[in-house]
Amino acid sequence: MGIKGMLLVGHGSKLPYNKELIETTAELIARKTNEYIVKPGFMSINTPTVEEQLEAFRKENIEMLVVVPLFLARGVHIDKDIPEILGLPEGSRRGEFQLNGKTIPLVYANPIGSDPLLAELMLKNAADAIANLQP
Amino acid sequence: MGIKGMLLVGHGSKLPYNKELIETTAELIARKTNEYIVKPGFMSINTPTVEEQLEAFRKENIEMLVVVPLFLARGVHIDKDIPEILGLPEGSRRGEFQLNGKTIPLVYANPIGSDPLLAELMLKNAADAIANLQP
Repeated sequence: MGIKGMLLVGHGSKLPYNKELIETTAELIARKTNEYIVKPGFMSINTPTVEEQLEAFRKENIEMLVVVPLFLARGVHIDKDIPEILGLPEGSRRGEFQLNGKTIPLVYANPIGSDPLLAELMLKNAADAIANLQP
Repeated sequence: MGIKGMLLVGHGSKLPYNKELIETTAELIARKTNEYIVKPGFMSINTPTVEEQLEAFRKENIEMLVVVPLFLARGVHIDKDIPEILGLPEGSRRGEFQLNGKTIPLVYANPIGSDPLLAELMLKNAADAIANLQP
């Protein structure tokens, strides 16, 4: 099996926190696995944009591109804007991506959504806040 | 140790997905632990509001109230609006909460932020999307 590409899509924000979150998470993912080349891209305000990162992936020798939105839940970006950029019909999760003279599968993943791992994260944040209470 | 309250704060949205996410996550947390009474509350559009759930917690026999924002990253809601509702000075993470004639500690937790668990969630969403590729 060759390596896959992961485009981690962030919303973007005038404040620095969304960009920091997406970039740091991309680094954490890259450190956890050798399965993917990970690149963060933004829907608005911040750069690199999603379009710029798609272009960057065309130069990589990947066998599949997975687009993973780092959004909490579905909305207009997830259901309309991102599929449009990816050339996917609304509601479709799979398409094709052109590298240098090669066509590979493109897969569009779900946003975070309800997940036991998210519940665990909230419990961790609560426990951390309580632990910090002690002077 | 008595039981604690957890107010899980959501952004709220005209679309149904944010509300679903916050409510389902509150249920998942409640199923995972007996440590907390969990109530979801929203900053805008959806109900119950954060203010309504604070009132609801005044009737519970809890020893501490932990306010956990289910937001990806810091922003105006996290830094200004929620602390204002909680009566916390900006930047402060701890205050007091009045029950029936009793004062208990109030703790304000961080939003999701960069976390190895979030990286894991993204890898899981990517793997699920690839698994669904098979016809």
